[in-house]
Amino acid sequence: MNSRPTKIVIIGGGFAGVSAASELGRRTRRDPAIDVHFVSDENYFVFQPMLPEVVSCGIEPSHILNPIRQLCRHVNFHCAQIKSIDLANESVALVGADARKTSTLQYDHLIVCLGLTIDLGRIPGMAEHSLPIKTLGDAFHLRNHVISRLEQADIEPDEQIRRKLLTFVCVGGGFSGVETIAELHDMVRAVLAFYPRAQATGHRTVLVHSRERILGELDEPLAIFAQKKLRQKGIEIILNTRLSEVTADGVVLSNDTEIDAATVVSSVGNAPHPMIAQLDLPQERGRLLADQFLRVKDHTDIWTLGDCAHVPDLQRGGLCPPTAQYAMREGTRCAKNVLATIRNQRLRPFKFGGLGQLAVIGHHSGVAQVMGLRIAGMPAWFLWRSVYLMKLPGLRAKIRVGLDWALDVFFPRDITKLALHRTEALRRAHYRQGECIIKQGEIGDKFYIIESGEVEIIRESEDGTEKRLATRAAGDSFGEVALLRDTTRTATVRCLTSVDVLTFGRSDFTTLVQSYDTLRIDMETRMQAIADQDRQNASQESPRADG
Amino acid sequence: MNSRPTKIVIIGGGFAGVSAASELGRRTRRDPAIDVHFVSDENYFVFQPMLPEVVSCGIEPSHILNPIRQLCRHVNFHCAQIKSIDLANESVALVGADARKTSTLQYDHLIVCLGLTIDLGRIPGMAEHSLPIKTLGDAFHLRNHVISRLEQADIEPDEQIRRKLLTFVCVGGGFSGVETIAELHDMVRAVLAFYPRAQATGHRTVLVHSRERILGELDEPLAIFAQKKLRQKGIEIILNTRLSEVTADGVVLSNDTEIDAATVVSSVGNAPHPMIAQLDLPQERGRLLADQFLRVKDHTDIWTLGDCAHVPDLQRGGLCPPTAQYAMREGTRCAKNVLATIRNQRLRPFKFGGLGQLAVIGHHSGVAQVMGLRIAGMPAWFLWRSVYLMKLPGLRAKIRVGLDWALDVFFPRDITKLALHRTEALRRAHYRQGECIIKQGEIGDKFYIIESGEVEIIRESEDGTEKRLATRAAGDSFGEVALLRDTTRTATVRCLTSVDVLTFGRSDFTTLVQSYDTLRIDMETRMQAIADQDRQNASQESPRADG
Repeated sequence: MNSRPTKIVIIGGGFAGVSAASELGRRTRRDPAIDVHFVSDENYFVFQPMLPEVVSCGIEPSHILNPIRQLCRHVNFHCAQIKSIDLANESVALVGADARKTSTLQYDHLIVCLGLTIDLGRIPGMAEHSLPIKTLGDAFHLRNHVISRLEQADIEPDEQIRRKLLTFVCVGGGFSGVETIAELHDMVRAVLAFYPRAQATGHRTVLVHSRERILGELDEPLAIFAQKKLRQKGIEIILNTRLSEVTADGVVLSNDTEIDAATVVSSVGNAPHPMIAQLDLPQERGRLLADQFLRVKDHTDIWTLGDCAHVPDLQRGGLCPPTAQYAMREGTRCAKNVLATIRNQRLRPFKFGGLGQLAVIGHHSGVAQVMGLRIAGMPAWFLWRSVYLMKLPGLRAKIRVGLDWALDVFFPRDITKLALHRTEALRRAHYRQGECIIKQGEIGDKFYIIESGEVEIIRESEDGTEKRLATRAAGDSFGEVALLRDTTRTATVRCLTSVDVLTFGRSDFTTLVQSYDTLRIDMETRMQAIADQDRQNASQESPRADG
Repeated sequence: MNSRPTKIVIIGGGFAGVSAASELGRRTRRDPAIDVHFVSDENYFVFQPMLPEVVSCGIEPSHILNPIRQLCRHVNFHCAQIKSIDLANESVALVGADARKTSTLQYDHLIVCLGLTIDLGRIPGMAEHSLPIKTLGDAFHLRNHVISRLEQADIEPDEQIRRKLLTFVCVGGGFSGVETIAELHDMVRAVLAFYPRAQATGHRTVLVHSRERILGELDEPLAIFAQKKLRQKGIEIILNTRLSEVTADGVVLSNDTEIDAATVVSSVGNAPHPMIAQLDLPQERGRLLADQFLRVKDHTDIWTLGDCAHVPDLQRGGLCPPTAQYAMREGTRCAKNVLATIRNQRLRPFKFGGLGQLAVIGHHSGVAQVMGLRIAGMPAWFLWRSVYLMKLPGLRAKIRVGLDWALDVFFPRDITKLALHRTEALRRAHYRQGECIIKQGEIGDKFYIIESGEVEIIRESEDGTEKRLATRAAGDSFGEVALLRDTTRTATVRCLTSVDVLTFGRSDFTTLVQSYDTLRIDMETRMQAIADQDRQNASQESPRADG
């Protein structure tokens, strides 16, 4: 055995990653020869199936969360983003809360379960004006958005605008779209009594779906039942129709109908994780190809599972569907196979046929397909609640969600519109004399405008000597070079006095420079001057002043 | 009696406002001759005394909230900000979620309970780098900030930086500062076990107070007891010291000591509400002078109470302290006196001596001064929990907080760092052909940069005819005039094609123009051109192109 422990690194904190990490933690806690590292950009695990109920104020956002450090014991957890994966050197580069620094994590086995991302860019206006429901933040914002529309409608004198404020459109008739629109409809109907002026106008909920029927994953009779139930509730369902444009005032459909709506929910737009495409690994349409043991094809030390992987379904043929039940079981199987590889034991193929499918279609109604049986209505709803409460990890979470459900029977819905975000887009910072705002060699993450005070720009040479390249004062700016050239900081910026600055993040700054002529021209002039100086310096061997 | 109902308008949603509104709602629900309107910028009421426990993850943020619409029945609730108060015309102007429009609310009786705001501008760097704990959003951000520092410390290789990340400084030794630092200290100590690398370094909590002893509101022996208890816990208390500067890396004290700290909490900086100063009403240092009946001095239709008012304390002499127990009782007294005035009954003076004071100094310890008795330690802590759970409005909130406390005994602290904010500072919007981005006469709230497409700028004259003043295309911008001149929109901007824009909010835009030379010079040139055109138009009577 090596003196150095074998390092297993898991990247991605969804169902698949958490399941693999907790299994590995459990099975290796007494084995000093194996180190397990788990990387996720959030320090909590979200129980996604309950997101629609967060939207409808039925469950508190925090109740469906579990701190990963408490859920996955005996692993080294890193709360960080993956910046890059280096297959040749068997390492991943991480960026934590301090965006100016990367750290490197070596691996012997890498488990890739990065999941999917969302891409709303395909329909004009969709990214700007529709609200996705993929993350907890999304559910939370949608909830606040809906309540804010009710508050606004209640003080709006214009009947037509009130109607727009009370129209809710959801795009996509899969599980999450159907559950969300049903929850949203029931919620608005339940709380409208508290908004007398809005109630007089009434609300409208519309589901737009591109196919012939909703819930394509289910058998036709069940889907038709759900469709009928939703329509009975008063939800309009528009089938065989796509969105062609979304604006702040509503949607334009592919049949040229316009619907005025202040709320457009998007449950479509899943896209492959961009990091996958950058890897020189066998893949198909942005997903890694896994073999029956969940190894990436033709590799023995890289594993993949969950929504970012193409996993063959040995039981039913075809590919494993991107659902939580599959991801969790893939996680445990993968953990066991990684350990089997390290310990020279026999690997076992991943085999699972699925337990069935469940969907809630609003208060006290659901549809289910379990072990060949089809259930609809109240029993399916009850089954959903029992199954998911059981599956929700952590006893505390179970108690809290159970209590939310119980309180829901006795109390009106909680319609607090939580104002938790900071509205400030521009950030300010204060530095005292002698402090360094930028350090040479760091990753550049911000552009700075000096509000007051004076700074010096310094080049440090390798022998530690410093050279002042320039000074900058109020009204001036610095920090653009590393952002526009995508390099690390080429100089240090130090305060000559107390200094106050305004800052822009990297993406905001580059977007602005691309789109806004005034800035673009100014930056082009500056970058040109620096390039000229660079050329001059190349012959004189003296450095440039840029920050 | 008039045919028009008498209108009572309450502005401000703290303890005083909610208490007055719910009392008025209850007492007038069968009286069609009285209309009660209640204005608050949030649609929920926050139970402030429990904020420190939100910081320490002991209570979920949403559990100490109550929807105002459910708390104050039988009143007309307006979720809006007060833009101005017009005493001459007896009206208030409101701005709801749509910042481009104001609405007007007439009153016969106005109850002013706007509370205090916070002003961190007095110490350099305080506004930028310290975290206040006044609102729910503050508590929520502080909680996330602290957990983020722990996550960051756990992956930070540099010992010195790790020490800075694990140092927490709180400024101000009043109730809220003491309770916050105690909660924070206990929380970090409790969860550090989940952060093995951070635990090895250890944490440091420091309380900085400008006076000789903390908790000035309490008798000396109790305060000294609290001070001793906190120090026993391991909290450093620095007395007779002020902050002179705060930066991203720490604080500089008035005795020139520097403390490296990545978290600085500010419990000081209360300031009068800026709207009060604008009112031509008797006031002292930003607070309205109230008579014994809670009317503003020399007025019979304007009432004031809570933290924004100077209310004489008839029982104990001097002024009523700015506490929840006083504010709530002032609310009910004021409600009764307003009704007595309308119904020509006898008014009664506000008399209340206070029930005592309670403070929690961390887990299982507190200090109290109740009806002449002094209690310290566990009994005081238990008393605090009982009293405040009783005072927390709403049975649902009571159940939830009670359960949080119960769960706290059995489970580790919930260390989820909720990522709910949208990181995007720049907002985008998509408009379709023919849509209006800006409408003439609206309040200007944004500056626009065109990413793609083309718009026309139109002046509508009073007879409804339109005149095109100019067109603008990608790279160009519009909307600056109304922001820089502080007028309503002087023209309409309509899309000639599909248009994508980037937007800046009013305050961000004006700050940028003031501080950033590149933008300032560009705007000065443009405003000069418009001014020239204005002069030219004045002679030719044709309008200008500005949006």
